Amino acid sequence: MTSSAKRVVLASRPNGEPKTSDFRIEDYEVPTPGEGQVLLRTIWLSLDPYMRGRMSDGPSYAAPVPVGGTMEGGTVAEVISSNSPDFAGGDVVLAHSGWQTHGVADGKTLRKIDPALGPVSTAVGVLGMPGMTAYTGLLDIGQPKAGETVVVAAASGAVGSAVGQIAMIKGARAVGIAGGKDKCDYVKNELGFADCIDHRDSDFAAKLKAACPDGIDVYFENVGGAVFEAVFPLLNAFARVPVCGLIAQYNDTADTSPPWAGKMLRNVLTKRLTIRGFIVSDFAGRRQEFLRDMSAWVKAGKVKYKEFVTEGLDSAPEAFMGLLKGKNFGKQLVRVGPDKA
Amino acid sequence: MTSSAKRVVLASRPNGEPKTSDFRIEDYEVPTPGEGQVLLRTIWLSLDPYMRGRMSDGPSYAAPVPVGGTMEGGTVAEVISSNSPDFAGGDVVLAHSGWQTHGVADGKTLRKIDPALGPVSTAVGVLGMPGMTAYTGLLDIGQPKAGETVVVAAASGAVGSAVGQIAMIKGARAVGIAGGKDKCDYVKNELGFADCIDHRDSDFAAKLKAACPDGIDVYFENVGGAVFEAVFPLLNAFARVPVCGLIAQYNDTADTSPPWAGKMLRNVLTKRLTIRGFIVSDFAGRRQEFLRDMSAWVKAGKVKYKEFVTEGLDSAPEAFMGLLKGKNFGKQLVRVGPDKA
Repeated sequence: MTSSAKRVVLASRPNGEPKTSDFRIEDYEVPTPGEGQVLLRTIWLSLDPYMRGRMSDGPSYAAPVPVGGTMEGGTVAEVISSNSPDFAGGDVVLAHSGWQTHGVADGKTLRKIDPALGPVSTAVGVLGMPGMTAYTGLLDIGQPKAGETVVVAAASGAVGSAVGQIAMIKGARAVGIAGGKDKCDYVKNELGFADCIDHRDSDFAAKLKAACPDGIDVYFENVGGAVFEAVFPLLNAFARVPVCGLIAQYNDTADTSPPWAGKMLRNVLTKRLTIRGFIVSDFAGRRQEFLRDMSAWVKAGKVKYKEFVTEGLDSAPEAFMGLLKGKNFGKQLVRVGPDKA
Repeated sequence: MTSSAKRVVLASRPNGEPKTSDFRIEDYEVPTPGEGQVLLRTIWLSLDPYMRGRMSDGPSYAAPVPVGGTMEGGTVAEVISSNSPDFAGGDVVLAHSGWQTHGVADGKTLRKIDPALGPVSTAVGVLGMPGMTAYTGLLDIGQPKAGETVVVAAASGAVGSAVGQIAMIKGARAVGIAGGKDKCDYVKNELGFADCIDHRDSDFAAKLKAACPDGIDVYFENVGGAVFEAVFPLLNAFARVPVCGLIAQYNDTADTSPPWAGKMLRNVLTKRLTIRGFIVSDFAGRRQEFLRDMSAWVKAGKVKYKEFVTEGLDSAPEAFMGLLKGKNFGKQLVRVGPDKA
């Protein structure tokens, strides 16, 4: 057990794209757990697009990280010592202990990870928040029917890859959007999507249209921006658009001005669209069904996943800035410590 | 029985606001019903905002009226003669026979009106399409809960007045938006809305905000445009926006350009909004429940309605142009013929 720990704090609120100087790495004393608390050693830190929102203080569904505060994030961690009756040293847990090597957490905020379900890193990936975002958003809001066309962007990523594969399990046709040939090839050849279009292609909108000859019935929205504008005209009557993220817009500083509503609403009406925002915690009650279905699909090879790992906590800021630009290929993870200390 | 009949045809497709010259009144021979058909004499013609959409040939949920064709519309009509086993002379029926004094229709497209439910004109009003639009959009999509705030525009009109009153029956707080003091007074004093704001007021947005101190949980969208822009920032987390009409935008000729999606989607995500377009036929299966509930509410005085009648088929074009400008006060009807010939 070390006595010195390391964390990444928010040094300043980014204006647009986060820069290296918006983060600061600090040393601190390993804390002592209080009553009901446990001391955690981080194994895996999950990096996810929503964290960009926490760096700003605009209105959102969650409070921002204070300047000088430790960056938030989901982790897979080992219990070092425990004052909670529910945990013992050596337990591996799902925590929200953030961008740091060590942390204390109330036992009530932790969930033991069942290693029988898969590698523990999947607890922040395909069997964790990203997988459950895909599962609930697609099934509870998107409700794809056999034969329908489901489109998802960031299709090689943690959420998008699960969305398309679950859509195929339900008999729908999955079309992905991704950045670059390698990702598109992976989505088509490894994941089995019917097609995958490169959003960097100058013919992107025309190619997307050609890939969706029967239009789009479900668009799982996790990027926004120009991709959304190419998708929107292709939506069929009664299409459903679950909105879980807008990574392409997170760094926008300019507020688009009205009139912005007219065109969108006209289509909502004439096509009877459903556009619905959600975050995964809105569907917390679906956790058991999600874990049951998703672990079975992963074991059966019906849902594949890819991890993109950088080494050491120090790598987190650059890895996160890369994630916002689509430099990751698969679920972005930071290996903070070994599986067993 | 007359041998000469009169109809209003679409003379030309309007560019923006319809003009008198976009309509033409024609005489024609009273037609003879064929096998399974009945001959109808129009008593009431309903004028509704959706008809503006039928005058244009842009993409919509329904085919446009052809140039030279009779304007479409719901009617209350008397059966003059019948080749259908289901109808006999003297029956009063709900038809879609359009802007004309006489028409033939297949018996299968007609529905007998039960005079026990209310005056026959209500079959195209509070007990007809507008009432059912309010009922299904509010209850099936808006799903107001007791204590929530429901906002509706065109609050003195056929749909809006029913939306607010049904919201109050469900224990919600109804706030209306209408054009002018007379309409606002009626909505507050006669219909019992908690408040009604005049959208022509220069302080409209500020007054709407003051009238909704707890924000807006359901916005029943039937106007669009500037009203929507004032409402949008007041929407609460998990707010629902059924979209059934955009009368303020129907005459727009300019297509608003991207980027228009960003601001709207950002709010859809952070507030987890549901925005869903619908037309009443999407909920055709709810007809019996609607008629049972609404006729009981009307009889109990819980849902009041107001009719705005112009006399004679010739008055229809001007009445319709007035409807698009909010000149009507209550459900717009044209008295085409007497109750009994």
